[in-house]
Amino acid sequence: MENSLKEKGLVYYSSLGWKVLSNYLYEQKDSKIFILTDENTKRYCSEYFLEKLCIEFKLEVLTISAGEAFKNIFTCMNVWNTLSEKGADRNSIIINLGGGVVTDLGGFVASTFKRGLRFINIPTSLLAMVDASVGGKNGVDLGSIKNQIGVITLPEMVLIDTEFLKTLPKAHLTSGLAEMLKHGLIHSKKYWERIKGVNVLDEVEFEKLIRESVDIKKEIVTKDPLEKNLRKTLNYGHTLGHAIESYFLESDQKPELLHGEAVAIGIILATHISTESLGFPKKTLDDVTRTILSYFPRQNFSKSDIEAVIKFLVFDKKNRNGKVLFVLLEDIGQYKIDCEVSNSLIYSAFEYYKNF
Amino acid sequence: MENSLKEKGLVYYSSLGWKVLSNYLYEQKDSKIFILTDENTKRYCSEYFLEKLCIEFKLEVLTISAGEAFKNIFTCMNVWNTLSEKGADRNSIIINLGGGVVTDLGGFVASTFKRGLRFINIPTSLLAMVDASVGGKNGVDLGSIKNQIGVITLPEMVLIDTEFLKTLPKAHLTSGLAEMLKHGLIHSKKYWERIKGVNVLDEVEFEKLIRESVDIKKEIVTKDPLEKNLRKTLNYGHTLGHAIESYFLESDQKPELLHGEAVAIGIILATHISTESLGFPKKTLDDVTRTILSYFPRQNFSKSDIEAVIKFLVFDKKNRNGKVLFVLLEDIGQYKIDCEVSNSLIYSAFEYYKNF
Repeated sequence: MENSLKEKGLVYYSSLGWKVLSNYLYEQKDSKIFILTDENTKRYCSEYFLEKLCIEFKLEVLTISAGEAFKNIFTCMNVWNTLSEKGADRNSIIINLGGGVVTDLGGFVASTFKRGLRFINIPTSLLAMVDASVGGKNGVDLGSIKNQIGVITLPEMVLIDTEFLKTLPKAHLTSGLAEMLKHGLIHSKKYWERIKGVNVLDEVEFEKLIRESVDIKKEIVTKDPLEKNLRKTLNYGHTLGHAIESYFLESDQKPELLHGEAVAIGIILATHISTESLGFPKKTLDDVTRTILSYFPRQNFSKSDIEAVIKFLVFDKKNRNGKVLFVLLEDIGQYKIDCEVSNSLIYSAFEYYKNF
Repeated sequence: MENSLKEKGLVYYSSLGWKVLSNYLYEQKDSKIFILTDENTKRYCSEYFLEKLCIEFKLEVLTISAGEAFKNIFTCMNVWNTLSEKGADRNSIIINLGGGVVTDLGGFVASTFKRGLRFINIPTSLLAMVDASVGGKNGVDLGSIKNQIGVITLPEMVLIDTEFLKTLPKAHLTSGLAEMLKHGLIHSKKYWERIKGVNVLDEVEFEKLIRESVDIKKEIVTKDPLEKNLRKTLNYGHTLGHAIESYFLESDQKPELLHGEAVAIGIILATHISTESLGFPKKTLDDVTRTILSYFPRQNFSKSDIEAVIKFLVFDKKNRNGKVLFVLLEDIGQYKIDCEVSNSLIYSAFEYYKNF
């Protein structure tokens, strides 16, 4: 088998990306190619995808239901069974065309089918572009516990084409911003200042910011692929963010939150806790909160909601020996990992979020 | 975390093994330790296990139903959920105490829970000792298709104690012999001659042969961990063997075959095909058949049984572009991989097996 790709997991952009992909698939023409989409990406993205490929292919399209609620092992079983029926073998390639649910689930399905098929990620949501596409984490939820089952395997390549962003409803676009804001907070004041006032309609500037966000994530996961220390910073805002997302997913009374919407709240809470316990500047905290609330409408949390969210914290993957461990910041770009946080600090963070 | 283990995946034997394990667990005393067993190994092996550990531990025992029929994703979900409930975190360790079903499923569950917990294999069946324990393959069946879902991850260590073999019913002991016979056939005449006449009651000699079998497998998987070529030889007899096993598992009319019982038939068939298409010596073929039939009672295959078995071949993991590819032999120790085999050769192999 020829292979024009230098190494696994590299990110290619726009028209160069399509050339690299077309080339690669051309070399693999003995392989069966499967496209994994969800109902939305099939409808809005697959035509553009086929148009951009410079060669003709026989492709099998597999479609899953859209939404986080379907990011589970039952959906995996459906896809595994379909792959089996359609004669996928170890030489087959799966192209995940979609948002984070498709790339996370598709990466896991590919990595575990016959002990590992090759896969390619083409993220179509902002969130998947700046976050899920880099670093090789994949997986599915277990009940309402997020990403509990998964492995780390690199895709053959990632193709980011910001044209796909035009297919997104506004809430989904904003959702991805949360991870970009996070990249600013954990990495550099300069990026934070640029991203916080971004105009998503300025396509050229926005694509630049996306590339920088990908570069920040790439730098971090390259230094610490197995999440021993530095990579944990990417979980900033995610400890409470995931718990909130899980709780809203499980609760009948709550709307389903997009990942970024939950993480945005988690960032405010983690930053308040950072101010209380590590002296993160109060002024910057207020700037963070103001910025986030300008993109993400405030959610209501009753006392019993907060209790329920805290219960979900025990499932966080960073925990050790039953202790819930947070990533916190002393200032923008100055992180501290494995911080224990008391429940009363969590309550007062929710209080701050409510009254800001 | 201290770590007395030099590298992952090493096999330790008997009393040295217990010392190494006790030491290792002592160093990891901040970790939660889980033991995965099935009903049988819990009953027959766990007491001995606890006795041999030189230190006191708080262990959580997780027990699954015994048998290949439970080596599936639903059992994984039960174990994942239990791990979640019992607070397993990334620092936890799973000890798989059991036969191939427990080590295969336990390895997969551990490798995918929170994207990877450490695990240790303590095989209690002969089959698991000489085969499943080495090389890091793990996984579960998808419907009746064997090992369709899985990954390759090395355990922290493997502990082989032949005392466990005394707990095995005779059929399970014999079942493991099939893989040892296979190791002889693909590797060396010398080992074949010794293993074919083995007296399993001669404990000292038998343990020697087990160690050599493990060494043969180890040598092969070290040279070709990702099964690009040489490692495929370990599938000798497995292409038809797996298909037979799957068919018997699915059929109401057929008894459930142990893995080794199915592989034993597969070895006779593959050797007959080797004689027909690569000139494997007829005299050695008859020797192979005689040896295997002395351990494994002959099964009946009607014409429709054979048709059904052939249908299962399309799921074989070695297949490429819809072609079923066999490992065949020109002589003992002289293999040829990726051989296409016609259905008529398969029918005549079954004919030979029936009439020998």
